[in-house]
Amino acid sequence: MIDLYTWQTPNGEKPVVMLEECGLDYRLQMIDLSSGEQKTPEFLAINPNGKIPALVETIGGVPHAVFESGAILVYLAEKTGKFLPASGPARYDTLSWTFFQVGGIGPMLGQWHHFDAAAPEKIPYAIERYRKESLRLLGVLDDRLKGRDFLAGDYSIADIIHFGWVRAGLSGLKNDSAAELTSLAAWVERVGSRPAAKRAIEKLDQAKRAKTG
Amino acid sequence: MIDLYTWQTPNGEKPVVMLEECGLDYRLQMIDLSSGEQKTPEFLAINPNGKIPALVETIGGVPHAVFESGAILVYLAEKTGKFLPASGPARYDTLSWTFFQVGGIGPMLGQWHHFDAAAPEKIPYAIERYRKESLRLLGVLDDRLKGRDFLAGDYSIADIIHFGWVRAGLSGLKNDSAAELTSLAAWVERVGSRPAAKRAIEKLDQAKRAKTG
Ligand SMILES: N[C@@H](CCC(=O)N[C@@H](CS)C(=O)NCC(=O)O)C(=O)O
Ligand SMILES: N[C@@H](CCC(=O)N[C@@H](CS)C(=O)NCC(=O)O)C(=O)O
Repeated sequence: MIDLYTWQTPNGEKPVVMLEECGLDYRLQMIDLSSGEQKTPEFLAINPNGKIPALVETIGGVPHAVFESGAILVYLAEKTGKFLPASGPARYDTLSWTFFQVGGIGPMLGQWHHFDAAAPEKIPYAIERYRKESLRLLGVLDDRLKGRDFLAGDYSIADIIHFGWVRAGLSGLKNDSAAELTSLAAWVERVGSRPAAKRAIEKLDQAKRAKTG
Repeated sequence: MIDLYTWQTPNGEKPVVMLEECGLDYRLQMIDLSSGEQKTPEFLAINPNGKIPALVETIGGVPHAVFESGAILVYLAEKTGKFLPASGPARYDTLSWTFFQVGGIGPMLGQWHHFDAAAPEKIPYAIERYRKESLRLLGVLDDRLKGRDFLAGDYSIADIIHFGWVRAGLSGLKNDSAAELTSLAAWVERVGSRPAAKRAIEKLDQAKRAKTG
């Protein structure tokens, strides 16, 4: 059985979309970040970094943990043979764009959100630094998607890993005239219209409401 | 033939160590970041994100590009069958720790360095934010290495991807009493004493000096 430890956030959504796309059985284990459940000893034994998402698959009675959304997506792709080509240039294209999310889009949009909306002081230099870098990174994706439906060949883990962050990024940029990201906006529609993406968003929403009341 | 586009930085060093460990033939193509060579149209055709490292392998006359250090290490590991188990829990342990570097240690130590040493203004809130998170992340690695020689079983791409950043992080923390990271410091010695690591550092240093005069 697969247990997915997660919460309703852009990183937490990725493996739910993947599990739905793969049609695998799994249990959602909601880790309430607002009450610090990601820092309990039980959860730190699964992910010593104290962050969601993490996945535990129990095989022959032995639990195996995988953490970091990128590693979880590769794990599920290799388990099912889906959404990541097994070899050749298409495989490494997919991995290049997958790592681009983890090393770029994730941390930079995350810092932008922090300084723009969460930090206790407004620090113009930091807000502008991360707004600019986020726009640049989203622009790289937008360029990549000109004339393409998906980031790396067929729909893949490279698309799945970007979906939640790009959706959040574009919605934060709604009133920003610098953001003319039409190919990227069309891609969000394309990916978001997949039944598995809709089910994932819906299931996370329900599970969060069931947990927080 | 393999061409590695890189520079003398913690991210740029990773694939050089890996190529040396694997005993592969390659050409170092030095991309001088200080003169903006990472933003030329020629280089953007290889990595549209305009960052080093990137690798191009020409097979049967057709060049294939891989970018993002994590994707490059996985590519070389799968090409050679070295430093990343082909299947099973050890594979996904290795990938979990590999992604931890790309999503955590890399960007957070990078932001810390920026605000501490490169930003035009000293912003105490930002310096402290990234110092604290960097220390936390380095502490996660230090804990992981208590009673272990390497991050995930045998020496692997998880170690190779961390080596340059952790070395830089610990040297930046030399006078910081908060940093009691003895297991991590021992691991830096262990990894750094490998002949391939020494050759990589030496070759990058020579290539940079040959380029900048
Ligand atoms: N690089 C990680 C990032 C994970 C991450 O940042 N998770 C956030 C939620 S989106 C978290 O757990 N934050 C709670 C905390 O840090 O205490 C991944 O891709 O899995
Ligand atoms: N996540 C990327 C990070 C690459 C990166 O940040 N490269 C830096 C040098 S360490 C760079 O090329 N900076 C130049 C620039 O951004 O213009 C990776 O792991 O490859």
